[in-house]
Amino acid sequence: MTTSREVRLKTRPEGMPQPGNFEVASVDLPDPGAGEVQVKNLYMSVDPYMRGRMYDRPSYVPPFQIGEALQGGAVGEVVASNGANLKVGDIVQSMLGWRERFNAPAAAVQKIDTHGLPPQAFLGIAGMPGLTAYVGLLKIAALKEGDVVFVSAAAGAVGSVVCQIAKIKGCTVIGSAGGDEKTAFLREIGCDHVIDYKKVPNLTKALMEAAPKGIDVYFENVGGEHLEAALEAAKPFARFAMCGMISQYNATEPPKGPSNIMYVVGKRIRMEGFIVSDHFDMLPQFLQDMSGWLGSGKLKWRETVDEGIDAAPGAFLKLFTGENLGKMLVKLA
Amino acid sequence: MTTSREVRLKTRPEGMPQPGNFEVASVDLPDPGAGEVQVKNLYMSVDPYMRGRMYDRPSYVPPFQIGEALQGGAVGEVVASNGANLKVGDIVQSMLGWRERFNAPAAAVQKIDTHGLPPQAFLGIAGMPGLTAYVGLLKIAALKEGDVVFVSAAAGAVGSVVCQIAKIKGCTVIGSAGGDEKTAFLREIGCDHVIDYKKVPNLTKALMEAAPKGIDVYFENVGGEHLEAALEAAKPFARFAMCGMISQYNATEPPKGPSNIMYVVGKRIRMEGFIVSDHFDMLPQFLQDMSGWLGSGKLKWRETVDEGIDAAPGAFLKLFTGENLGKMLVKLA
Repeated sequence: MTTSREVRLKTRPEGMPQPGNFEVASVDLPDPGAGEVQVKNLYMSVDPYMRGRMYDRPSYVPPFQIGEALQGGAVGEVVASNGANLKVGDIVQSMLGWRERFNAPAAAVQKIDTHGLPPQAFLGIAGMPGLTAYVGLLKIAALKEGDVVFVSAAAGAVGSVVCQIAKIKGCTVIGSAGGDEKTAFLREIGCDHVIDYKKVPNLTKALMEAAPKGIDVYFENVGGEHLEAALEAAKPFARFAMCGMISQYNATEPPKGPSNIMYVVGKRIRMEGFIVSDHFDMLPQFLQDMSGWLGSGKLKWRETVDEGIDAAPGAFLKLFTGENLGKMLVKLA
Repeated sequence: MTTSREVRLKTRPEGMPQPGNFEVASVDLPDPGAGEVQVKNLYMSVDPYMRGRMYDRPSYVPPFQIGEALQGGAVGEVVASNGANLKVGDIVQSMLGWRERFNAPAAAVQKIDTHGLPPQAFLGIAGMPGLTAYVGLLKIAALKEGDVVFVSAAAGAVGSVVCQIAKIKGCTVIGSAGGDEKTAFLREIGCDHVIDYKKVPNLTKALMEAAPKGIDVYFENVGGEHLEAALEAAKPFARFAMCGMISQYNATEPPKGPSNIMYVVGKRIRMEGFIVSDHFDMLPQFLQDMSGWLGSGKLKWRETVDEGIDAAPGAFLKLFTGENLGKMLVKLA
């Protein structure tokens, strides 16, 4: 018997989530039962999509329930095992983040062969955000060599991988992010043009200057003004991989839609939404490519790390204020 | 030597076009030169896309020029021929509408084998609007048997063909149009559900009632509120064939975009614009299918016909006030 602390949804946020929407609770954790393991989480992930699960509405994943622990990606270490295939000291990943420790059937966690990477890389560049970038760019946007690619939230966990894969594939990359630290990072990872959307007076104009002949691909993480700028700058037959719209997640009234959506017709734009979990068939190919790129030093990544379970709600909120550079993580042990 | 009258663009419309944006002029027409034919137009087409060519801006077709005759689809009869492959009495189609007669190189017109159809059918169901419906539904939207299909401007030249092809392919069809005459026509051509968008207090609600499980395909001719309703009602993995947005063509300030565009991500919607002229490779297949469907009486079509070249600007304006049922034509001879 031990104890664990976990973060629960106390009330559903309206608009921008507040610390008071969350509560941290202690729970007694018995020894693991037959076939179970006990895992001590090392890192947990906070991701923008989790905001959607805080609404009580049908979506592609069921909503979080009030009074229950939140869920999300985590990497941890097996500290007790009654599961045949897992032993103490194994590094595993699970969807049982937002808690310090947990018991679960051995089949509910996946052992990671870290290939020398730090385990938290599997919550970022070598995990779900990396796969999201890979699927969105190569499959949904059908990237071709020579494409001009515009990436919003380009310094984030997904966007920064999108930029770098596009460079590896011989494309011209325009990255948008806010603030000096992020734009410096974008230059460091090889973006050909960097837009600080918080500084430019007119995002569309800045994009048209960076891509005077237009863009072939837009990787959408933000929505709003970024989507309008991308529609304006799109070349005929441009492809838009619609991954997320973080500017819209906390809207309390219907947000302003893109006034120039009509370009989809005349420019024959293909705009396609996707969710990474529909594309797990690409995981083996992704892991093969990614380990090659990481091994040869072609890909860089950044993390913003807060410490301790009490910091988890605040780390989540930073996603919406843009305070994180690269992958936002909470170190739990 | 004879004379012809033609419609010219006098001034560029701002917002909704006005009769004063057009002028009818007489021109002297010499006898056709070597290799040329003279054609007497029988019918000319007015189409919504022509509005776009009245703006002076880059687009997929060059803009109309002030003081010059407009262009557009027409069917006519050869009245004099110096072209080896055409003889007097042949029925031809061309892009030289908006005029009573013209001389042109024989290669600039295409002889039509009417297969017993009236020649103006080649401006509608058996012509560009029919092919637009065919391409958009079967190729862009990748229609499958059993799909629930929502069609806006469903009583129009394109929309009414979309509805009927979808029924032939075993789908459930929801058509939206305005007014009793149009909605009666939609019932006549087999729509399973008919929405009079001018009467329903809430288009989204009306659509959700017609398709309680959601729609698989949206055929977009209108934009605005129709697009918002379709996004709201879309099932996961819905496909949107983006053919036009007639509600937006005369906007004088940026129109309101769809506030729920974010559904594209979570529902993994594929939204794809298209222009029929990119898909002329489908013409032989279209003509084969269409002649079969027309021959077996499976397809109905309607025309709204105004008479004489002086009526052409007014016929064009009717497209935007929704006064036409089916294909809007001008009979010239």
